[in-house]
Amino acid sequence: MKNLLDGIEEILLMGPGPSCVPPTVYEALAKPTLGHLDPYFLTIMDSIKSMLQGLLNTKNALTVPMSGTGSAGMEACFVNLVEPGDPVLILTNGVFGRRMQDVAGRLGARVEALEFDWGKPVDLDQTSDALKKGPFSIVAVVHAETSTGVRNPVAEIGSMLAGTDTIYLVDAVTSLGGIEVRMDDWRIDALYSGTQKCLSCPPGLAPLSFSERATAKLNARKSKVPNWYLDLSLITNYWNQNRVYHHTAPVNMLYALYEALRLVLEEGPQAAFARHREAHEALVAGLEGMGLSMLVEKPFRLPMLNTVRCPDGIDELSVRRRLRQEFKIEIGGGLGPLAGKIWRIGLMGHTARRENVDRFLQALQAVLP
Amino acid sequence: MKNLLDGIEEILLMGPGPSCVPPTVYEALAKPTLGHLDPYFLTIMDSIKSMLQGLLNTKNALTVPMSGTGSAGMEACFVNLVEPGDPVLILTNGVFGRRMQDVAGRLGARVEALEFDWGKPVDLDQTSDALKKGPFSIVAVVHAETSTGVRNPVAEIGSMLAGTDTIYLVDAVTSLGGIEVRMDDWRIDALYSGTQKCLSCPPGLAPLSFSERATAKLNARKSKVPNWYLDLSLITNYWNQNRVYHHTAPVNMLYALYEALRLVLEEGPQAAFARHREAHEALVAGLEGMGLSMLVEKPFRLPMLNTVRCPDGIDELSVRRRLRQEFKIEIGGGLGPLAGKIWRIGLMGHTARRENVDRFLQALQAVLP
Repeated sequence: MKNLLDGIEEILLMGPGPSCVPPTVYEALAKPTLGHLDPYFLTIMDSIKSMLQGLLNTKNALTVPMSGTGSAGMEACFVNLVEPGDPVLILTNGVFGRRMQDVAGRLGARVEALEFDWGKPVDLDQTSDALKKGPFSIVAVVHAETSTGVRNPVAEIGSMLAGTDTIYLVDAVTSLGGIEVRMDDWRIDALYSGTQKCLSCPPGLAPLSFSERATAKLNARKSKVPNWYLDLSLITNYWNQNRVYHHTAPVNMLYALYEALRLVLEEGPQAAFARHREAHEALVAGLEGMGLSMLVEKPFRLPMLNTVRCPDGIDELSVRRRLRQEFKIEIGGGLGPLAGKIWRIGLMGHTARRENVDRFLQALQAVLP
Repeated sequence: MKNLLDGIEEILLMGPGPSCVPPTVYEALAKPTLGHLDPYFLTIMDSIKSMLQGLLNTKNALTVPMSGTGSAGMEACFVNLVEPGDPVLILTNGVFGRRMQDVAGRLGARVEALEFDWGKPVDLDQTSDALKKGPFSIVAVVHAETSTGVRNPVAEIGSMLAGTDTIYLVDAVTSLGGIEVRMDDWRIDALYSGTQKCLSCPPGLAPLSFSERATAKLNARKSKVPNWYLDLSLITNYWNQNRVYHHTAPVNMLYALYEALRLVLEEGPQAAFARHREAHEALVAGLEGMGLSMLVEKPFRLPMLNTVRCPDGIDELSVRRRLRQEFKIEIGGGLGPLAGKIWRIGLMGHTARRENVDRFLQALQAVLP
């Protein structure tokens, strides 16, 4: 029987995630599996938790990687915090804000969506006006909107919520590891991320953190969390010193996350952010030098997710196919109203290196007419 | 900074899962990550689906690995099939039947639990009587109860449901790959499993399959599935030919599952089942030769999960600690009413080999007074 795994080639991953994985993270994945209650494995779990707290700039005791991809992190935040009828304000300017509306709506939240143009940031004046219609139980926003390449003003929105009881919920899937995330300083109560973006780890885990305010809301629920698998009151009993078995942890994926976090902290978060910024600046200079134009205005651009307009008359899908087939480079297309109109070029984690930018620019030059 | 991964030792995993992982499955985990929409990765997905259909003995089009551990498979089956108020009968004789009650109850099902002693199989006469109180929307049972080592009569319960509209939901987490699972012949409508038992793959994925009857119930729902992440109507649109992006698939874990399934099919399922049976018989003979007694009566014993009573006056935890520390062997303790009273000795997948049985028996002999 033919083994398809023998045919896997190394592709330069410059799409919206997954990103390139460093050799030692692959090695970590392949370390011998330990039991999920093995004493040595428990020390690795403790270390993952403290490294996550460091990278998130938080003291939150409830800081754990959830056993699912980034979207499971989104599901986990909402399902633990929403009770039917709760008023929830979602600030939306892309696919992932829309997804939040869908997730919260399915859980019975009264969802109020404040929508902005895709490619523009969340506007603070309109947000301030919307907040006056509250109080809201939860206000949610995406830090780095992967569908558009926009950075939203997460710190400023957090300031607006000072002195209220509102839970502030932030998607940091694409931002964590590539730009600063200061959970405590920015008054964020519930945050989730993913491993396959700027942490340079394969997809499969969702780092999550809850503040004391969020944990108190969870503990004060009138009804059980309607999702046993993601119930944080049970999961924390495994990750804290009680070590009560909940579900079998994805042991080898956790090894990979351990190594990925260790690499970011070894390099230093500030150095990693600078590397993302420099790769981004080189990419934008190269694209603009070829006459292409960026979708997002300069102050709101993400370094790790670059959206560039396809020139008129170009079949964007055939460009992506040629990059993949002839140059072994993956980039992403647009989603929703941006489908067919933009390319999404990821410079996430291990991908964010000058040599990759140069290789991509040369390939694109060769493919464009 | 000290790297804890350097200190991971190879442990003989003879607990209730995870099980030992073959070298080529570790190698598969460490293959280069591809994008989740990469054309080559899509061929690997198709192959995983058809291998799962083969091992499950099903033609079900809706056959996918869910992006979470076995418990996410349980959650997925119930959350897609239960609508509030649905009457659900759960046949329970251990931890995992109890967990089904909790999961279904959180989703608003009217749960009727038929409970049996832990260590005894589900009784067919009592089940028949309970079914007369129906009709039930769903009848659920665990095939291989990992907490007790009992094999439940899954085929016979399926026969009782012939000619009804009832959805038959089966937990095959510990059985799949170690004993026969015939989804279509046994009239099973919804089934989930896990990767870390008899498939010899690290934990992190939950194979799942829905019959046409289950798929029709999903499609006829009056309300949206109250869980976006596990909504099978969205997930199948990624796994079928539409390839609509849902969430980023756990690519490297899927490589590992591919290789694990390939190994089972290369050996041949019947040969794998015989290997489990032979290892089990050698283990039981060895334990009984040492004067120990099995918890479960012979006709209902699982080959891959062996429960043996701790002798009076023995501190069961200190035995397990010594096995782990001095002999690098992991076994499990009892749960719930069996805590402190039994050991659970796994012979799952790659672990189910005579050399492992011999090594364990020698170690146990050395540790027991």
